Amino acid sequence: MSSVGTPDPNPGWLSEEELAEARRRLPLLYVEAVPVRVDGIGRVTEVGILLRANASGDITRTLVSGRVMFGEGLRDALYRHLEKDLGPMAFPLLPASPVPFSVTEYFPFPGAQFTDDRQHAVSLAYVVPVTGTCEPRQDALELTWMSPIEAATDAVAAEMEGGRGALLRAALASVGRLF
Amino acid sequence: MSSVGTPDPNPGWLSEEELAEARRRLPLLYVEAVPVRVDGIGRVTEVGILLRANASGDITRTLVSGRVMFGEGLRDALYRHLEKDLGPMAFPLLPASPVPFSVTEYFPFPGAQFTDDRQHAVSLAYVVPVTGTCEPRQDALELTWMSPIEAATDAVAAEMEGGRGALLRAALASVGRLF
Amino acid sequence: MSSVGTPDPNPGWLSEEELAEARRRLPLLYVEAVPVRVDGIGRVTEVGILLRANASGDITRTLVSGRVMFGEGLRDALYRHLEKDLGPMAFPLLPASPVPFSVTEYFPFPGAQFTDDRQHAVSLAYVVPVTGTCEPRQDALELTWMSPIEAATDAVAAEMEGGRGALLRAALASVGRLF
Amino acid sequence: MSSVGTPDPNPGWLSEEELAEARRRLPLLYVEAVPVRVDGIGRVTEVGILLRANASGDITRTLVSGRVMFGEGLRDALYRHLEKDLGPMAFPLLPASPVPFSVTEYFPFPGAQFTDDRQHAVSLAYVVPVTGTCEPRQDALELTWMSPIEAATDAVAAEMEGGRGALLRAALASVGRLF
Repeated sequence: MSSVGTPDPNPGWLSEEELAEARRRLPLLYVEAVPVRVDGIGRVTEVGILLRANASGDITRTLVSGRVMFGEGLRDALYRHLEKDLGPMAFPLLPASPVPFSVTEYFPFPGAQFTDDRQHAVSLAYVVPVTGTCEPRQDALELTWMSPIEAATDAVAAEMEGGRGALLRAALASVGRLF
Repeated sequence: MSSVGTPDPNPGWLSEEELAEARRRLPLLYVEAVPVRVDGIGRVTEVGILLRANASGDITRTLVSGRVMFGEGLRDALYRHLEKDLGPMAFPLLPASPVPFSVTEYFPFPGAQFTDDRQHAVSLAYVVPVTGTCEPRQDALELTWMSPIEAATDAVAAEMEGGRGALLRAALASVGRLF
Repeated sequence: MSSVGTPDPNPGWLSEEELAEARRRLPLLYVEAVPVRVDGIGRVTEVGILLRANASGDITRTLVSGRVMFGEGLRDALYRHLEKDLGPMAFPLLPASPVPFSVTEYFPFPGAQFTDDRQHAVSLAYVVPVTGTCEPRQDALELTWMSPIEAATDAVAAEMEGGRGALLRAALASVGRLF
Repeated sequence: MSSVGTPDPNPGWLSEEELAEARRRLPLLYVEAVPVRVDGIGRVTEVGILLRANASGDITRTLVSGRVMFGEGLRDALYRHLEKDLGPMAFPLLPASPVPFSVTEYFPFPGAQFTDDRQHAVSLAYVVPVTGTCEPRQDALELTWMSPIEAATDAVAAEMEGGRGALLRAALASVGRLF
């Protein structure tokens, strides 16, 4: 087992109502990942962006993202959400360092740079090279691979959920691929 | 007001019982700070460590640390806890970058590297130069200034709460002052 | 004295011809700084960009930038170039960490992302809050303060020397101020 | 080709005498790597340290290290030195980000924290997971794999060349593995 003392998944975790309640009272901790392809010397060549139908049926773009559970290590959470969103054959290479390239604060208030209608969430975001085949699961329709230049355009930013266009640009900047 | 949409402090926040309940169900988000003195070219010359009596009456050493509230920005939380622990005249210089030098995971399980009996907490930790006079408040007895070399000793690590000796060493490493 | 064993400035350093020769044979080490104004909780509110007449008499925009000398510490070099470009009353707050937000590679070859006709230079770049009054000296005509949003525009990028528009955007991303 | 405009290796580079001369006049740019083994979720499990006979015939420990050549990209230099020191089957995974975990300044002066008798060198250091088989070449006698705890001991630090024990500890801290 990779995390310290991961508990039985049920007892400590939250029912839907309890989670809804917590979301009105506490900032929730998230991890996010920007999947990338790299060349032989580690330079990012492509960025993977999820196409997804959101709760209101709109098609939006987003990143791999999900909540950290009670007792769960950050690496375990990151791995779990990568597998959930990219499928079991993506073979992500998690970073050796747990320090994110960005800490993003989502608020359920109008006017915030990053927004999330459901909650106040704070996400730790990582650039994660994937070496296998991505098959988006769950509610994701597709994973689109783009060049760093395309991923940084205003057109892509306008389609990204919750202001994540800026997060995507920060990801590119952190790997020296924002032009 | 510095944060986006900071709500009225009462309605959205938690009673003691609710907080106790949340602590058994969700990872809580913390910020931590290592107060330092720097010289004219930014090099860390001294590290400030709090001496405190913990719940069981033991004297332990710790860092500036505290929870992020619902709707509160990370910078606001960091500033609030610096003021709470170091007093209003410390004049901390918060970092321009919100990326922490370390993300620390505290678990309420034996065997974890970092432990917190009360909860699963994830803290974002920052090195923060302070330029004024520190007067520890609340339950802190004293702020002790040490050289980077002294702060990294096993003797200090043994007195640090919850495994924070390793966090302190990581702080020193992040500013090039771990020898 | 702040650096270890800083030598007498003359003997070990280079004549103009020797420097020209070295520039054809070795990558030269530079430091660069993006001067910023921050608010009370460390958030960047303005970015300072130098307006300068370059060797061909064109007006271009650039950042604080300069070579690291033999025997000189990086912090000393950074401080020296900040003082040279912003004047003695700028009161820059050098970062506690010597790790740059970006390592930029300038090549004297067409097609490189970052270019420098004179040389292969590798620069370590830092975001540096300044608290005093900036009076550009030497060949700088003016220091222009811009909002983070304005500094990230294509119009500004087009005026930046050697591709530094991308470096400026990376600086903004590193402090969570690229939108 | 992975770097921009990599020139013919001969013309622009330096003879032994010219290099000796440059070393007395300019800081030289180096890259260094701490080879590591990681588990399935990216956590560092082992650290590789080179055992080497130095110029005076003493046995010392060191890291992968080498100079950046004129016109050479940092990633290319890092890859070249990893291959030179670990052999062609090490299969290193270079980091997506070019920002080092540490910038280390080596001075040829007594009293400096990091020393190099030959020169003033500034190195950009990276933690690099290797996935294949390491067969040290050239003057390296052996690559020793150690646990993070063993690698951080005073005994290992005492054997590291030029003060690199502190660099090794900073590497461990950067990946959350300094205890």
